[in-house]
Amino acid sequence: MNATLRPSADVYPLPQNVSNLVSTCGILAPREVEIVSLDATGLRDLIANTVFTAVEVTVAFSKAAAVAHQATNCLTNFLPQEALDRAKWLDAEFTRTGQPVGPLHGVPVSIKDTVGLVGTDSNCGFVSWIGKNIATKDATLVSILLKAGAVIIAKTTLPQTVMHLETDSFLGPTVNPYNTTLTSGGSSGGEGALIASGASVLGIGTDIGGSVRCPAAHCGIFGFKPTVGRLPRGGNKGLMVIQETILGTAGPMARSHRDLELFISVILAAKPWELEIFCVRMPWRAEGIVWKGGKTPRIAVDKLSRAGLVVVECTPWKAKESWELISSLYWTDGGARVKTALEESGEPMLPLTEWILSQNAKPRTGEEIMQLNVKRELFRQAWHEYFQSTGVDVVLCPPSAGPAPVLGTSRYWTYTAFWNLVDAPSGIFPTGLSVGLEDVADQPRDFLSEQDKEITEQYSPEKFIDAPLSLQVAGPRWADESVMSAMGIISDIVRA
Amino acid sequence: MNATLRPSADVYPLPQNVSNLVSTCGILAPREVEIVSLDATGLRDLIANTVFTAVEVTVAFSKAAAVAHQATNCLTNFLPQEALDRAKWLDAEFTRTGQPVGPLHGVPVSIKDTVGLVGTDSNCGFVSWIGKNIATKDATLVSILLKAGAVIIAKTTLPQTVMHLETDSFLGPTVNPYNTTLTSGGSSGGEGALIASGASVLGIGTDIGGSVRCPAAHCGIFGFKPTVGRLPRGGNKGLMVIQETILGTAGPMARSHRDLELFISVILAAKPWELEIFCVRMPWRAEGIVWKGGKTPRIAVDKLSRAGLVVVECTPWKAKESWELISSLYWTDGGARVKTALEESGEPMLPLTEWILSQNAKPRTGEEIMQLNVKRELFRQAWHEYFQSTGVDVVLCPPSAGPAPVLGTSRYWTYTAFWNLVDAPSGIFPTGLSVGLEDVADQPRDFLSEQDKEITEQYSPEKFIDAPLSLQVAGPRWADESVMSAMGIISDIVRA
Repeated sequence: MNATLRPSADVYPLPQNVSNLVSTCGILAPREVEIVSLDATGLRDLIANTVFTAVEVTVAFSKAAAVAHQATNCLTNFLPQEALDRAKWLDAEFTRTGQPVGPLHGVPVSIKDTVGLVGTDSNCGFVSWIGKNIATKDATLVSILLKAGAVIIAKTTLPQTVMHLETDSFLGPTVNPYNTTLTSGGSSGGEGALIASGASVLGIGTDIGGSVRCPAAHCGIFGFKPTVGRLPRGGNKGLMVIQETILGTAGPMARSHRDLELFISVILAAKPWELEIFCVRMPWRAEGIVWKGGKTPRIAVDKLSRAGLVVVECTPWKAKESWELISSLYWTDGGARVKTALEESGEPMLPLTEWILSQNAKPRTGEEIMQLNVKRELFRQAWHEYFQSTGVDVVLCPPSAGPAPVLGTSRYWTYTAFWNLVDAPSGIFPTGLSVGLEDVADQPRDFLSEQDKEITEQYSPEKFIDAPLSLQVAGPRWADESVMSAMGIISDIVRA
Repeated sequence: MNATLRPSADVYPLPQNVSNLVSTCGILAPREVEIVSLDATGLRDLIANTVFTAVEVTVAFSKAAAVAHQATNCLTNFLPQEALDRAKWLDAEFTRTGQPVGPLHGVPVSIKDTVGLVGTDSNCGFVSWIGKNIATKDATLVSILLKAGAVIIAKTTLPQTVMHLETDSFLGPTVNPYNTTLTSGGSSGGEGALIASGASVLGIGTDIGGSVRCPAAHCGIFGFKPTVGRLPRGGNKGLMVIQETILGTAGPMARSHRDLELFISVILAAKPWELEIFCVRMPWRAEGIVWKGGKTPRIAVDKLSRAGLVVVECTPWKAKESWELISSLYWTDGGARVKTALEESGEPMLPLTEWILSQNAKPRTGEEIMQLNVKRELFRQAWHEYFQSTGVDVVLCPPSAGPAPVLGTSRYWTYTAFWNLVDAPSGIFPTGLSVGLEDVADQPRDFLSEQDKEITEQYSPEKFIDAPLSLQVAGPRWADESVMSAMGIISDIVRA
């Protein structure tokens, strides 16, 4: 069942902040409101203890997803019937065997359009691709989640090309539930809006420049981009999956830190390296992490220091250079594949597609690509030596230049894309703070760059009211467990 | 001190089999002969127990290396003075502190020309590169070995381009110590000849198509090619280190299975992932390996079955396709870099260089390279699914089409290159058998291919007399520990 309806805000006027709509609209019964207020771990435990049935949970989240979609335009596929059929089977199995099917028994999961689910399409934001990628096999991640007992409730929106930090396509923009004049972020912006609306607890996004972390940050939820190779990639579609200059990865999006860890530990417990040669044979090693110190920008320094963490303030490291390099590595065909995909249907190129293709996308020869790859390896190694020399465990930094931008204006990727360039695990947590009318604009100052000027001058508290403020934690390549653990510790302190 | 002297066989006639020359030539004292008969682990233990000093060991191996070079032409750099100075320092440290400097205290190590060692050159088999790559920093592997107490005694030969399975360059061919009319293999053929001659116990080779395993097999020693990313690569030179279509890796060569494991466990204990972002954060996990079964060709089936291993006979899997694919991925510039390196000095292109460039080397566009990379990933995944479906632990297979070929005739890489294409850990062990006069040629038969015909018809026991016969063990990507362990078990049974 395709969700081709556009948001109906013009028919039924909605407030600018729709983040509570699911619980206040009256469509969900009080018990259903209680259900959708829980996180995946909480739901899993209560279903396992027979407090809720899988069917009850599925109905509650399906209702919530319908509401969230009407308010934010976050779905490509709404799957209430498939989800309900599965939930009934799960409940029956539970009754028959006396135990849950797996560690995610009855937990609702949403997945980005790119992720393969039998019988559903992945149009990846191109009109010409509609109906071309109907999956005959579940993505590896999906098949592991299903074996663990999850219920797939919906597929979610993404932008044209899957390469905007917003979510706009022929389906129209997905908006931020906290302020619908702002973007939900992208490219996994459907997940961001759906989960932040209280209509899903666990989502699969993908990230090659910030596409899990940006929408997590803008929507005030948790998100994690692991080192490439920790999570399987089979069955994921899109223009970028065939290039190797920069590799993307899937990553979980959720409403709690513990749910990110639940997701990744369930996936790695299934030994994905036996399923995909791409996956590194590395179990999730939650124990044995040794801490040396910490590092962070303003907002959390005081709380962290008071909590006993050693905080070292730092300045950005080769930010401009990192963007020049990674943007050169994204489209080594100069955007030819994008143009072909658009020309096939006559679909217009969206401004943010035009913009990303203006960022060093050039048709490169084999030799030029090889030299760019060498530059990337030298950059990575230089970063690694710098990071090791500091002696710190993780970097705490902003996830973007500010809160969720006004629709159509997201043109600064460096805060997230840097960590893709160096293939570092990095995660997002919401601080619990959001923009209020008291958060006045900076006084005029010397700007670092034209971009700094543009972004700063765009700001006013009225325009960005209610936008969530989030932080990012990143650490050494392959130290996913350490970064995840640090996120938990730091977010607990910051949110306390 | 550069070893530019050519083998002096024309001046001092030598036997065709020079594998015992070190112990029989009279240049080493009986105690020195005893020293050079040990493996690295044995030497390490006896030095640690003050039975031998580092100086004694260094003198013995330096003498042996001089003899081996005269007989096989295996050295590019002979470093007796540097080695002796270091050995004296090690002995002094031992006296001062009462304990060895590290787990390789006093163990002699040789390294391939490509591996960076401060003050020495890496010409990589090109006249025009002589003097261009004098290292100002030790390779990461070398610096870890030195910290562990090793003594670098020599650098060893490789072929023009570093891309032959033989070792011939402007320095002339390195020959097989067991039969000097045959090749020592390549490209780490200097290591093969030196170690097999009893003149080194531990060597660093590199392998992108068989360059550790081929010379190990032909020279009757042990060798191991890990999964790419387990061992560090910093400070390694050569034309191939800048391309990513197929990645090479360093690997140890040694005279015992336990020495391979000693090498790799010393390197991984140094946490190379803290030094190089390229390295996967994966300690050496020697314990906890679970076995399912085994699989092998003729020679060892009976012994293995009698020893209780489950052996499943198998047929080659997509061998021809694998060579077409990997050879397309080696030189995506069509050999332009090779030609430039040769033209700069006017050095003639050797026949095996011409041959490897005739194997699908074409200048490719960025788009073509991307499509080849996709083919490689699909091939890898198809192999992986096939391998997993068999339920076996490891594959036991030949390392080459036969024993060490006659000089200049090595034109079949598939037995080793297959495992580079699928990035599988694989190792070589000598069976203890070698060609004897009783090993008559096959009766005329239907040949599998032109290459099969050519290789088979070349064979006669007289020509290949004394050539060692070796076997190869390979297993799943990242399961380096399992493959190493399997090699130990299987080689013990086969050699018993």
